[in-house]
Amino acid sequence: MLKIFKIGGGIIDNPEELNQFLELFSQTESPKILIHGGGKGANKLLAQMGIEPKMIDGRRITDLETLNVVTGLYAGNINKTIVAHLQKFNCNAIGLSGADANVIQAIKRPIKTIDYGFVGDLTNNSVNHHIIQSFLELNLTPVFCAITHDKKGDLFNTNADTIASQIAIAMSKHFEVELNFCFDKIGVLEDINDDKSLIRTINQSIYKNLKEGNKIFEGMIPKLDNAFSVINAGVKRVNLVHALNINSDIKTSIC
Amino acid sequence: MLKIFKIGGGIIDNPEELNQFLELFSQTESPKILIHGGGKGANKLLAQMGIEPKMIDGRRITDLETLNVVTGLYAGNINKTIVAHLQKFNCNAIGLSGADANVIQAIKRPIKTIDYGFVGDLTNNSVNHHIIQSFLELNLTPVFCAITHDKKGDLFNTNADTIASQIAIAMSKHFEVELNFCFDKIGVLEDINDDKSLIRTINQSIYKNLKEGNKIFEGMIPKLDNAFSVINAGVKRVNLVHALNINSDIKTSIC
Repeated sequence: MLKIFKIGGGIIDNPEELNQFLELFSQTESPKILIHGGGKGANKLLAQMGIEPKMIDGRRITDLETLNVVTGLYAGNINKTIVAHLQKFNCNAIGLSGADANVIQAIKRPIKTIDYGFVGDLTNNSVNHHIIQSFLELNLTPVFCAITHDKKGDLFNTNADTIASQIAIAMSKHFEVELNFCFDKIGVLEDINDDKSLIRTINQSIYKNLKEGNKIFEGMIPKLDNAFSVINAGVKRVNLVHALNINSDIKTSIC
Repeated sequence: MLKIFKIGGGIIDNPEELNQFLELFSQTESPKILIHGGGKGANKLLAQMGIEPKMIDGRRITDLETLNVVTGLYAGNINKTIVAHLQKFNCNAIGLSGADANVIQAIKRPIKTIDYGFVGDLTNNSVNHHIIQSFLELNLTPVFCAITHDKKGDLFNTNADTIASQIAIAMSKHFEVELNFCFDKIGVLEDINDDKSLIRTINQSIYKNLKEGNKIFEGMIPKLDNAFSVINAGVKRVNLVHALNINSDIKTSIC
């Protein structure tokens, strides 16, 4: 089984927890893949450089200046820091943006009402699963940042959850795939204030009942909808799990 | 024959010339490898972020703040821009720092009189030529930035010429290797003001005569000394060539 992990937000911004997670990740049996988001560093860096965040209708716009900052931060600082720490833990990691080995080819988000700038969307054919498979055969552990390209020389900021989902779907041509979305909760809770209310397994019929009974926190619904769409596209299992619980059974498994 | 190219300074800071070079590079027959330096962007970025360059006795010190800036710039911005442009030219490039796939393992420069900070030196065993060979067998073109690691979780700033030389030497176990140092002259000139005085071939005996006759510009001597030491370590040929002349015969070949 191929295990794919996506980390984001909180843990990226906490070097100590990130290091703990990376040790746990390195102990997970191969083959495995890591996808990381960017955390809050981009806003901090933009501020430090005197660049105003560009927003339209509350949505971040990736202009060229912002793209340059996030490319340096995501593909440079965060990606190489993660890779160097995994190497420390004897996990033979290789950091990749979508441009490297043409592994994720995106299309610039079309302008409808808003021009999001240098933001790349993925299609069902964006992920080059053959080259990822070649890296796994070399016993390498791919570590993806959320920067993609269009094969015309442009780089794009891309949603890391989308990258993780598309990689999981594409790799299910080669493996049984388990996709782990790591976040700051222990999983899906019936009562958001009570960790004991963890729901360990959710399938379509349980999900239907939970939704009908209003027993599910609204913020979880997009995550669960995405999990089921990934499963319908061929992925064996999706886990929602705290980053520091990845090697325990405390998680919500969606299948 | 494996052709290895090192670019630095001027061309990195000139997007138009860089693009021209990358098109020429992409037209060079495979297999090939590119190593790039950092250009002047680091000083500009440090200034923009309000970070004073740290210097001791006129030598740059890479403290943690500076390391973070150069890691983002070299491994993120410059490396991914180069890779994305090569992909545009149908050259299947893969960007690498030394941490990726543990491809270049350095040691922190020992403190003698000066603590250079996060600067990595290479040994004769630093370059993992097996994994580079595996990438070449996948028809990938490795593109190295000058960031290395120590397998203990630390990243280092490393001299790009040294990286190019050590990769060339290590790869000469697999290939006849030609190492091209690209710079802003057309090669070694007898008269620095006259391009017609290009010396097309230099071997040990010609070099001895040139030096004895004071017919060689002082600044070229370290480059030539390095070229001969690389050749003595197994590399077939070293060229000193203008970045935009790589596919012409206007160059100085050292053998």
